[in-house]
Amino acid sequence: MEKRRIYMDYAATTPMKKEVLDAMLPYYNDLFGNASSVHSFGRGVKGALDTARTEVAKLINAHPSEIYFTGGGTEADNWAIKGVAFASKDKGNHIITTKIEHHAVLHTCEYLEKYHGFEVTYLNVDEDGMISLEDLKNSITDKTILISIMFANNEIGTIQPIKEIGKIAHEKGIVFHTDGVQAIGNVEVDVKELGIDLMAMSSHKIYGPKGVGALYIRKGVKLHPFVHGGAQEKKRRAGTENVAGIVGFGKAAELARVNLDNYKNKLISLREKLINGIMERIPYTRINGHRTERLPGNANFSFEFIEGEALLLSLDMVGIAGSSGSACTSGSLDPSHVLMAIGLSHEIAHGSLRLSLGDSNTEEDVDYVLEHLPKIVERLRFMSPLYEKVAKGGK
Amino acid sequence: MEKRRIYMDYAATTPMKKEVLDAMLPYYNDLFGNASSVHSFGRGVKGALDTARTEVAKLINAHPSEIYFTGGGTEADNWAIKGVAFASKDKGNHIITTKIEHHAVLHTCEYLEKYHGFEVTYLNVDEDGMISLEDLKNSITDKTILISIMFANNEIGTIQPIKEIGKIAHEKGIVFHTDGVQAIGNVEVDVKELGIDLMAMSSHKIYGPKGVGALYIRKGVKLHPFVHGGAQEKKRRAGTENVAGIVGFGKAAELARVNLDNYKNKLISLREKLINGIMERIPYTRINGHRTERLPGNANFSFEFIEGEALLLSLDMVGIAGSSGSACTSGSLDPSHVLMAIGLSHEIAHGSLRLSLGDSNTEEDVDYVLEHLPKIVERLRFMSPLYEKVAKGGK
Repeated sequence: MEKRRIYMDYAATTPMKKEVLDAMLPYYNDLFGNASSVHSFGRGVKGALDTARTEVAKLINAHPSEIYFTGGGTEADNWAIKGVAFASKDKGNHIITTKIEHHAVLHTCEYLEKYHGFEVTYLNVDEDGMISLEDLKNSITDKTILISIMFANNEIGTIQPIKEIGKIAHEKGIVFHTDGVQAIGNVEVDVKELGIDLMAMSSHKIYGPKGVGALYIRKGVKLHPFVHGGAQEKKRRAGTENVAGIVGFGKAAELARVNLDNYKNKLISLREKLINGIMERIPYTRINGHRTERLPGNANFSFEFIEGEALLLSLDMVGIAGSSGSACTSGSLDPSHVLMAIGLSHEIAHGSLRLSLGDSNTEEDVDYVLEHLPKIVERLRFMSPLYEKVAKGGK
Repeated sequence: MEKRRIYMDYAATTPMKKEVLDAMLPYYNDLFGNASSVHSFGRGVKGALDTARTEVAKLINAHPSEIYFTGGGTEADNWAIKGVAFASKDKGNHIITTKIEHHAVLHTCEYLEKYHGFEVTYLNVDEDGMISLEDLKNSITDKTILISIMFANNEIGTIQPIKEIGKIAHEKGIVFHTDGVQAIGNVEVDVKELGIDLMAMSSHKIYGPKGVGALYIRKGVKLHPFVHGGAQEKKRRAGTENVAGIVGFGKAAELARVNLDNYKNKLISLREKLINGIMERIPYTRINGHRTERLPGNANFSFEFIEGEALLLSLDMVGIAGSSGSACTSGSLDPSHVLMAIGLSHEIAHGSLRLSLGDSNTEEDVDYVLEHLPKIVERLRFMSPLYEKVAKGGK
């Protein structure tokens, strides 16, 4: 059998589409001007930024004037949270978020607690990774200035009740930010319908270039700039515009919008085949995340009695690229904070595998995983002293 | 005569070199993995980041471990200043900078003053744009935690006495940050020799891509992270690495280092021909910036009795791309803060032109400018009521 290479780590990053690179290349060549310049070299690129802004806006049903380009999703999360916090200091110092946020949100909140006098409530989630709306309501105080709850979780795929959260926030006059990095391009996101005030987005999760993202800022929402300097982005985000990157993001957003239904349906079908196939074939396995309120391409398993890193390396050897959790924290020996928050023990959390599906994946890819993964898990388990007991005990 | 297009706005941005794009392209194709991923798609890109880091370090004689990639020069300035300020709050709240900094520094300092309880001294400069070392010494208090003085000015090209500033800072135990965006790749920059603690850099000013920069952080210098989140850049700058952008920056840094002497000498020779030619041909003209301690490619003139914007548009019509000041503030009706700081009146500051030279420029380009610019200035002056008086008065 030929050696295959199957990429199932689309939640970490996606390959750029050919159309995206084609759209970018002119801005690395003739159209290299600074968008802020008056002369013809600069004028040529202004329109390209407008087009990209419009496309990103259309993907989430925003107005183009509400889209502010950043250096990535993490910067956008930092901006939203620090920007609101510092701008609302005299109104209050309390922020509500969850225990399963991406570190771009969690570490930003922890920083504000540690050094800037803010207080943060980290909401618990249930075993499916869902917050409780009652908990949310009960945690609001008259000092609460910001609710930051992610749209969809990057590890376990659980999608939160965003519309209900927005409603609760607005009843109390609180700004609602959501980390939309994993959601856009994967599920319908309508910021108006959902009542979102701020949303962080990233280009490289939707087949665009790395190093560019955006913050959606609903008209009228008050927050400090995060990066100070020149007058770019209507004086709200300084720095020479990454023209090629922004153009690429715009093209990726356009393609994501046009293909959304097909993409989503394809991924859900592959995901279900994958999840059902694994659950049938591998005992002592838990599927993490909500079973239906879930990102189309996300599958996250915990296999008892094995180590996630060993599993990843074994998969890599047969050409399957997956992840043990978030790429941003790999290398860390701590178990995933998300898996801990849904109640897994250290031991079980360590034996976890995220397979996130995308564009290139096919039924044959899933078949290949279903052929190899059970064998690998079985082999690793037979090396585990804990499993030996279980196996001898009766299976 | 055929229509030429002459780009003399290299201080605003530079076209990417072919070698830079060639180096980047693989990372937009097969090598698209997330550098933090464990599998083979991710491992393939880690080495590329190391190579780029080494090249940027070599350009400024730093150690690779002292280079932290950012989303651009502006972010690097923000990080340096806010990072030191917030980390040193208990030591003091006083920052020293100058009146001619880039807005990435000035607006960051103003923000810290307005919202975070810091006090900032903005040093004056002389008519050449030079700070006074005596002033600097005298402005230091026991609350001073940071000195931020730009290496070379983006508008008038003046190069500050960096080594002496570093010495003064370190005698008092104060951190010294410099905005090196215009300096690197244009003049020798040796952070060790010069005693620089922090230095902001940008890729797109040295023929690399936009949207990527770096902060040099001397080993041992304490500052807070600016962008919080994942564990990238040794946990000091979160966000998925912009691999292609960083690779491009690395290649641009390598080329800049290898070509530095030739590049500098070529630009100085063209600049002198341009400056001398203009001063001979156009009366009522002032050359702005220090005459020798100056960026190789920078020429900045003030022409009395005319409006800079009209001049730029007229130049654009004959194919010459220049700038009235900084690209980052174009569109603003206020005269340049730099030109005001060196003592120009509003009126004269408004009649200013920056021509910044680079790679593509030739002797013929300079000849072309020397042919057209005097005619354009003369024509614009004849439309000015103020000039009429002068002309009638005796010229």
